[in-house]
Amino acid sequence: MRIRKKNWTEEELETSRYLINEPEALKGKWREKFGNENPVHIEIGCGKGKFVSEMSKLYPDINYLGIEKFTMVVSRALRKCKLAEAGNNIFIFCKDAEELENLFEPGEVKRIYLNFSDPWPNRKKWIKKRLTNERFLERYENIFGERGEVFLKTDNREFFEYSIQSFSEKGWVLKNISLDLHNSPFEGNVMTEYERKFSEQGLPIYRLEAYYGSSMKE
Amino acid sequence: MRIRKKNWTEEELETSRYLINEPEALKGKWREKFGNENPVHIEIGCGKGKFVSEMSKLYPDINYLGIEKFTMVVSRALRKCKLAEAGNNIFIFCKDAEELENLFEPGEVKRIYLNFSDPWPNRKKWIKKRLTNERFLERYENIFGERGEVFLKTDNREFFEYSIQSFSEKGWVLKNISLDLHNSPFEGNVMTEYERKFSEQGLPIYRLEAYYGSSMKE
Repeated sequence: MRIRKKNWTEEELETSRYLINEPEALKGKWREKFGNENPVHIEIGCGKGKFVSEMSKLYPDINYLGIEKFTMVVSRALRKCKLAEAGNNIFIFCKDAEELENLFEPGEVKRIYLNFSDPWPNRKKWIKKRLTNERFLERYENIFGERGEVFLKTDNREFFEYSIQSFSEKGWVLKNISLDLHNSPFEGNVMTEYERKFSEQGLPIYRLEAYYGSSMKE
Repeated sequence: MRIRKKNWTEEELETSRYLINEPEALKGKWREKFGNENPVHIEIGCGKGKFVSEMSKLYPDINYLGIEKFTMVVSRALRKCKLAEAGNNIFIFCKDAEELENLFEPGEVKRIYLNFSDPWPNRKKWIKKRLTNERFLERYENIFGERGEVFLKTDNREFFEYSIQSFSEKGWVLKNISLDLHNSPFEGNVMTEYERKFSEQGLPIYRLEAYYGSSMKE
């Protein structure tokens, strides 16, 4: 009998050392998992993992988690980590952002990256799915504990306008806003796959930092 | 002896019923001046007066004040009011925004318009001249009293980025942000002279509303 050769997608999902299968089990134990006290930064919707894996190499003193809700895409991110020879400061797992509070105790996450999140149409039934809707900001507040920050990039004008208002209405403080990131003085930008493609068309990338909690006054 | 015919600039400045010569004298008495209890909206840097005079005709239940620091420009705004046959709900005067607190008691102003304000270069010695610098936001807070709002339009990206951050750091709430006003669902936009010229070049106009005080929670 001929055994079908596993494709790399299955192989990554079964063997990758970067994969976490049951992230809920680590709620409250992320410091143990990483084996240090470094801050934890997460990317919600990490896609194929270019951004989060590059960041993990650039900043070895930060712990990174790439969260992605589609299994097939998770396998791509796992592969990216392997090819990039990422270190012990990064893991990837498959989860929906709705479940954040089942994954982290307050204070376990310091920063959230939202890169080119789905803008969802500007209609009542869709708008609450936006990752900057107040429903999500409240989840972020819960996993931040006292303070935390969201770093956001998007090419979608309406989503960016909406996000500024949404953060502002929740009392978060906005900083380092850029309405054309690639023509701004901002340094050290790590591009996502999407961003690279999009920016080649010459259209602006919008970026902001939003600070929650006592860090608002820093 | 031939008497030189006065030009219209001088004539407006001497005879216009829309001019206020000593606005300081009306501090605390603006309701008397207008003869009603309607809200007072001011435009800081009203230029040639197109915006504020059109607004005064569109919204007869609002009292308008156009403030401009250059006398020659004031005369243009006065003339605009005359030609537009503006009503009793608008006056123009010549003052620097530095003097706002000498002109209004807390609560006398409900809304401030900043249209295409001088962006000033992004250098330390100039930045505090920006009309959204915290020095000015504090002045606005003082003349608002409990609550008030700033409606801002600009074509200058960096000034807009700066303004979002500045309002946000002072705890004001941002709403109805538009990163391309003329291609947005916003209705009822009254264009300034500058805006008309600028928009013909196809470049985006940025707009925001910033709310101070108890209106932040509305």
